[in-house]
Amino acid sequence: MRYFVITGHKAVTTGDFKLDDIAGGAGRLDILVRCVNSAFFLSHDLRKDVEIYLVLEGGEAAPKTVVFKGSELRYLNPDERSTASLIRNALLKPVKQGEEVRSSPGVYVTKMSFYDVLDLLAQKGEFVYLKEDGIDCRDYTFPENPIFVLGDNRDLTEEEEAALVSHSPDKICIGPHSLHADHCMIIVHNEADRKSV
Amino acid sequence: MRYFVITGHKAVTTGDFKLDDIAGGAGRLDILVRCVNSAFFLSHDLRKDVEIYLVLEGGEAAPKTVVFKGSELRYLNPDERSTASLIRNALLKPVKQGEEVRSSPGVYVTKMSFYDVLDLLAQKGEFVYLKEDGIDCRDYTFPENPIFVLGDNRDLTEEEEAALVSHSPDKICIGPHSLHADHCMIIVHNEADRKSV
Repeated sequence: MRYFVITGHKAVTTGDFKLDDIAGGAGRLDILVRCVNSAFFLSHDLRKDVEIYLVLEGGEAAPKTVVFKGSELRYLNPDERSTASLIRNALLKPVKQGEEVRSSPGVYVTKMSFYDVLDLLAQKGEFVYLKEDGIDCRDYTFPENPIFVLGDNRDLTEEEEAALVSHSPDKICIGPHSLHADHCMIIVHNEADRKSV
Repeated sequence: MRYFVITGHKAVTTGDFKLDDIAGGAGRLDILVRCVNSAFFLSHDLRKDVEIYLVLEGGEAAPKTVVFKGSELRYLNPDERSTASLIRNALLKPVKQGEEVRSSPGVYVTKMSFYDVLDLLAQKGEFVYLKEDGIDCRDYTFPENPIFVLGDNRDLTEEEEAALVSHSPDKICIGPHSLHADHCMIIVHNEADRKSV
């Protein structure tokens, strides 16, 4: 399994945003939506061995984490608007601390924080932090169940980074240029595909 | 310079589509919009040494080609809706055969067909056809001014492919899986970046 964890530092946690304004009023939800696209789409198929954890840290109901699970996922289309709609439907569901509520097949909403997500996933694989000063992904031996952690358009906060570092993640970079999170994910998938992780 | 040519086999050529429906009513314009994102975005910068030719082949005014030129480009944001809006503004401009009309800085609309685009670009670089049976891009020596040609969610038509083949393109693939056009572009950029093309 490949896991991705993306922090949306300003991303909304209530479902009252407009689908016309996901880059503005929804706190750069557009970034997270593109990450969902990168996580799952092959040319004519979806990757079933992937889960993505979108950690939403903005607005009144923060934090919430929306989880997409490839093995169960349906109704995912590649365009931003329809994926934002799946997230909005998830955020409209009432959810209590400790619960995982399904809003559509393969899409779940929880009250997990970034720290809760790290604690949950620590039992499932090895953390891999995507960071400019990491080693080149081409020189890196991927673990069996990598958990890739990325920020949105901002780096992890100091507190978030410290929590991640306490799990002793490997650090990798994806090439000569710093890229958007969704583009980094494409490079990482390609490298892992080539190494048959 | 890196050039990208993408065929939008059903993509609209008139500006009367709704920004809420770019994946439907606009003939999968969402695919082309994501290709624009892949062409230009670095983490905190735009690639200036890139041009992308979106060949729109659907609707009453077909064909039209909308060109984005990185060296002049402004007002490009990463979300699909705002890029679709730039394309719609271009399609709303009157344009005659042989003209190139600027709709915003770095964005042009023309009446060029796929064949016209090939003829124009043949003078500027070497064609590289992205195709599953091509050689691995990692084993490929990129030309100085590569012109990457991709289909949208459909392959090139037989006629289009024959026209491209008449220019003796190199054929490359991007890895073990077939990917969406915008994802292929990320891999190609990364490989060219690593080879300092």
